[in-house]
Amino acid sequence: MSRFFSSKYKNLTPYVPGEQPKDTQFIKLNTNESPYPPSENAVRFASCAAGGLNLYPDPTCSDLNAALAEYLGVSADEILLTNGSDEILNFAFMAFCDENHGAAFPDITYGFYPVFAQLNNVPYTEIPLKEDFSINTDDYKGLNKTIFIANPNAPTGIALSLNEIEKIVKSCPDNIVVIDEAYIDFGGTSAVPLIKKYDNLLVTQTFSKSRSMAGARLGFGVGCKEIIEDLNTVKYSTNPYNINNMTMAAGLGSLRDNKYTEDNCKKIKENREFASKELKALGFELTASSANFIFAKHPEMSGKKIYSSLKEKNILVRHFDNSRISDYNRITIGTRKQMKALISALKSILEEN
Amino acid sequence: MSRFFSSKYKNLTPYVPGEQPKDTQFIKLNTNESPYPPSENAVRFASCAAGGLNLYPDPTCSDLNAALAEYLGVSADEILLTNGSDEILNFAFMAFCDENHGAAFPDITYGFYPVFAQLNNVPYTEIPLKEDFSINTDDYKGLNKTIFIANPNAPTGIALSLNEIEKIVKSCPDNIVVIDEAYIDFGGTSAVPLIKKYDNLLVTQTFSKSRSMAGARLGFGVGCKEIIEDLNTVKYSTNPYNINNMTMAAGLGSLRDNKYTEDNCKKIKENREFASKELKALGFELTASSANFIFAKHPEMSGKKIYSSLKEKNILVRHFDNSRISDYNRITIGTRKQMKALISALKSILEEN
Repeated sequence: MSRFFSSKYKNLTPYVPGEQPKDTQFIKLNTNESPYPPSENAVRFASCAAGGLNLYPDPTCSDLNAALAEYLGVSADEILLTNGSDEILNFAFMAFCDENHGAAFPDITYGFYPVFAQLNNVPYTEIPLKEDFSINTDDYKGLNKTIFIANPNAPTGIALSLNEIEKIVKSCPDNIVVIDEAYIDFGGTSAVPLIKKYDNLLVTQTFSKSRSMAGARLGFGVGCKEIIEDLNTVKYSTNPYNINNMTMAAGLGSLRDNKYTEDNCKKIKENREFASKELKALGFELTASSANFIFAKHPEMSGKKIYSSLKEKNILVRHFDNSRISDYNRITIGTRKQMKALISALKSILEEN
Repeated sequence: MSRFFSSKYKNLTPYVPGEQPKDTQFIKLNTNESPYPPSENAVRFASCAAGGLNLYPDPTCSDLNAALAEYLGVSADEILLTNGSDEILNFAFMAFCDENHGAAFPDITYGFYPVFAQLNNVPYTEIPLKEDFSINTDDYKGLNKTIFIANPNAPTGIALSLNEIEKIVKSCPDNIVVIDEAYIDFGGTSAVPLIKKYDNLLVTQTFSKSRSMAGARLGFGVGCKEIIEDLNTVKYSTNPYNINNMTMAAGLGSLRDNKYTEDNCKKIKENREFASKELKALGFELTASSANFIFAKHPEMSGKKIYSSLKEKNILVRHFDNSRISDYNRITIGTRKQMKALISALKSILEEN
C-alpha cells in the first residue's frame, strides 16, 4: 500500500477471482465458463469489428441494445449493457445504496457483493441461508434495504421460483431488489417479465456463461426506464465507452444465433444430470443445482482435500474457505468427456484414500 | 430519475461524449480518433482471440503487461491496464482523493475530471489557465491536493516541458500528481521515466489515439509499484476482468508493430502542420498544439457558428460551451484529404459570411 491510498479503503478486501492458469493442460472446472466455443456468428462479427477499432464505440450500444430488447421482450430504454455483469452490479451498489441505505444478501452467495458494499461504503447485512442452503424468502420480505439475490444462487446452484421472487419484490416497494441471473439459462425462471409490473426490480444477466462469452465481458441490467436512467447517469460519470466495439459486435452475433446457445444449454443440463448421477454413485452429496455447476461434498473427505487432489490430477474446481461451505467444492459443468475425466479422477482419489 | 437513486448523486452531471453519428457520410473530426485503421497485427491478434471467448481473460493481463513494460522501460508491476484511460483516471480519483483530500486541475482541460470528482464526492479546485491558455506551473507547486494535469492539455493541445512537470511533481512530495498523457505520442515528452525517481507520480496513457484503438478501450497507468498496488486493490474490488480477451490481444499486436504507430504519428504531425498553416492563411488563430487536434478560433465568426456551418457541410468538429473557450473549436487531425476538405469547407463558410 502506498502512503497516498485513501483511508476510506483501509479495510477493503478485494475479490479473488478463480485461478486462471496459463497452463492449458488443466481441465478447467473452476470459473463456470462454458466448455463450448462462442457462436461462429459472434466470432465473425467480432473479427469484422476489429478492423474499425480506430473509431470509438457507440456509447449507447444502440444496435445491440435493440437486438437484446427484442430478444427479452422489453424496450431498449429498459436495458443497460455493461463491461461484464460485475459492472452492472457495482453500478447498482453505487446508485441504489449509500451509507444511509444499506444492502442485504445471503451469507453464502456471489462473493463480490460484500466487496462492492465495502468499496462503496455501504453497510450490509448477510442473511444466513437455511441449513439446506436454500433462501428463506421470509427473511427478505418488507426489508428496508437494497436486496441482492443471485438466482440461481452461487455457489449452491439452488433456484427460487418466480413466484417466490415476486413475493419479495412486491413486499419491498420502496427498495430496489436486484436479481442476479448470471446462471438463469441453465434452469430457473427469469424475473425479466416482472420489470413491467414493478418499478423496484433490477434483473442482471451476462453473456459470459450460456453464451460462451466470458472473455468478451458483456453483462446487462433490465429494469423500468427510470432505474436504467439512474444507472446510465452512473455509467456516463464513470466510463461512457464501457463496451468496446468487438464485444458489442460479438454480442450482436450471439443474439442472431440463439439456437446455438439453446443447444449448448441443453447439453450442459444433460451433462449436469450425468455428472450428478455419477457423483451420487460415488457417495457425494449435492445441492439441487439449476446452474452450470454442481456443489458437492463427500462425507469421507474434506472439500480442501478433494480440491487439492483434483488439482494434482490437473483438474481445477473451486473451493471456498468460508467455514459453512468448506466441505464443498463448486464444479463447473464441462463437456461429457470432461465430466467423465472428473468422475474417474474422483473415483481413484476416493480409492486411494 | 427513479425515487431510489442515492441522494449522493443528486448534483452529478455526467460527462457528455462527442457525437458518434452512425451516418458515415460525416468527416469525423470531433473525438480525436485516428483516421488510420489499427495495425494489421492488432486486428489479426484480436480476431484470433475471438475464437476463445468462452474463457475468462487473464485478470493480470500478464502478457500484455510484460510487453508494455518492455516498451516503456519499466517493470510489469509498475503498470496497470484498464478499460480505456477513463478507467485508470477514475481509479486514481477513487484511490488518491476523498472528501478530506481534494483534487486540483486546470479550469480548461479534459471535461471528465470534474465528473470523476463529483462521482467520488471529492472537493475540487479548478485552477484558471493563463490568458494564453498555458498552465501556470507555479499554481501547482506545493499544492496539498491530488493534481491532474493533461499533457498535452485538451482541448488546447499545449504541452508542458518535462522539466516543468518534474518541478510540479517534486514540489508536492506528499500528494499524487497524475499526468494524463493521452496525446503524448503526437508531441511533448513523456514523464514515464520520472516514475523511477518519484513515488508520487502516476502517468496515464491510452491506446485510443496514436495506436488507432479507441474502439478497443485500452488505457493504462504507470507509477511506482505501491501506487499500482493501490490501484489494483481498487480494480479487484470493482471489475477484476476489466479488459476483455480481444482488446488484450489487439494491444499485444499493436505493441509488436510500433513502426506502424510511429509512421501514423508522423503523418498526423505533418497533417497538423499542413492544416495549421492553411487555417492561419484563412485568418484563424491557433494554440500551439502538440496533440492530434487543433484548437482554433476566427476573429470574424463565432465558434458555435463555425461548428454548425461545418456540420451542415457534413464535417463534425467539437465545440465546447464553456464561456472562456466558446470562440474556439477543437478539430481532430485527419488524413491529408480530410484536412483539405476541412479547409475548403471553411473557406466557403467564411466567404458566405
